[in-house]
Amino acid sequence: MTSHYEKIDLPVSKVRRYLEPGPIVLVSSASGGKTNIMTMGWHTVMEFTPSLVGCVISADNHSFHLVRDSGECVINLPTTAMIDEVVGIGNSSGASIDKFERFNLTAEEAQKVKAPLIRECYANFECRLADDSLVDKYNFFIFEVVKAIVATSPQHPETLHYTGDGVFMVSGKIISRRAQFRPEML
Amino acid sequence: MTSHYEKIDLPVSKVRRYLEPGPIVLVSSASGGKTNIMTMGWHTVMEFTPSLVGCVISADNHSFHLVRDSGECVINLPTTAMIDEVVGIGNSSGASIDKFERFNLTAEEAQKVKAPLIRECYANFECRLADDSLVDKYNFFIFEVVKAIVATSPQHPETLHYTGDGVFMVSGKIISRRAQFRPEML
Repeated sequence: MTSHYEKIDLPVSKVRRYLEPGPIVLVSSASGGKTNIMTMGWHTVMEFTPSLVGCVISADNHSFHLVRDSGECVINLPTTAMIDEVVGIGNSSGASIDKFERFNLTAEEAQKVKAPLIRECYANFECRLADDSLVDKYNFFIFEVVKAIVATSPQHPETLHYTGDGVFMVSGKIISRRAQFRPEML
Repeated sequence: MTSHYEKIDLPVSKVRRYLEPGPIVLVSSASGGKTNIMTMGWHTVMEFTPSLVGCVISADNHSFHLVRDSGECVINLPTTAMIDEVVGIGNSSGASIDKFERFNLTAEEAQKVKAPLIRECYANFECRLADDSLVDKYNFFIFEVVKAIVATSPQHPETLHYTGDGVFMVSGKIISRRAQFRPEML
């Protein structure tokens, strides 16, 4: 795991490049002086502009309350090198431990939200709650990404995709079919 | 591309195994004697039981109207071997062509919905519209998977994950960390 990514701004309309492939992400949040991190696999891009991401955060999770109370979070993208942190964070509760401390992760100040971002992750997407109309029924939050930064290299990070049962698929190999796309579909 | 998968029933509560990793899927639909297929990358699992999947189908798509009118669709999982069909289907409109015919795909009768499934795909998830409350605002449909079948082999299909710009990531390599999971988290 590297903790020394150089990062640059990414237009928020382009976060689909990293989220549409469906990687496991780490959601960091803060409320009432407490922070937490959760592992999340149930999310989808919903719009380019505004940059909307929908995701399920179970009410059983400690993070649910921090996210709902603060109306903010950061979606952080770990690479395969962070699999131990991903598994450990998903199998522990922020009600009893400080996950930044326990997993040696660095809580870095975000630019547009109060939730901290995780420095060791490849990309960080700062989010504000945009629509909570399906939270009570489905634990489904719709966030607007208000600030995005990504590592300058590698161009295509190897990411983890969860299948359940403790098994992850790894994405990394790239196939470009750009030449076969109509320009307006790119 | 093989068109000869042997398939077996999958409990609908287990479709997350194939959808949570975030693959590109093909959505087949039917209404008023017409069928269509679209390529879709914006989807998320929302619940195990009932088996809910949320997804964005743009109102610009021909499929939007077929799905909305019929309240049904089939989510079909293509493997990397079907990349030409995935790209071709995503770059054409069912308003002007019959995509089953154009891409040599077999429309097979589904068991619980009237929309056809695509025989050549690795898995087929028959869906009924469960909640359309966010369709007008976000083109976001919540479907209940009412029937699921999957190929018996390979156990872990190689799948396509779209990043935009005509570029796909391929998932296939598997890492199991089952031993590190608390039993209730599996």
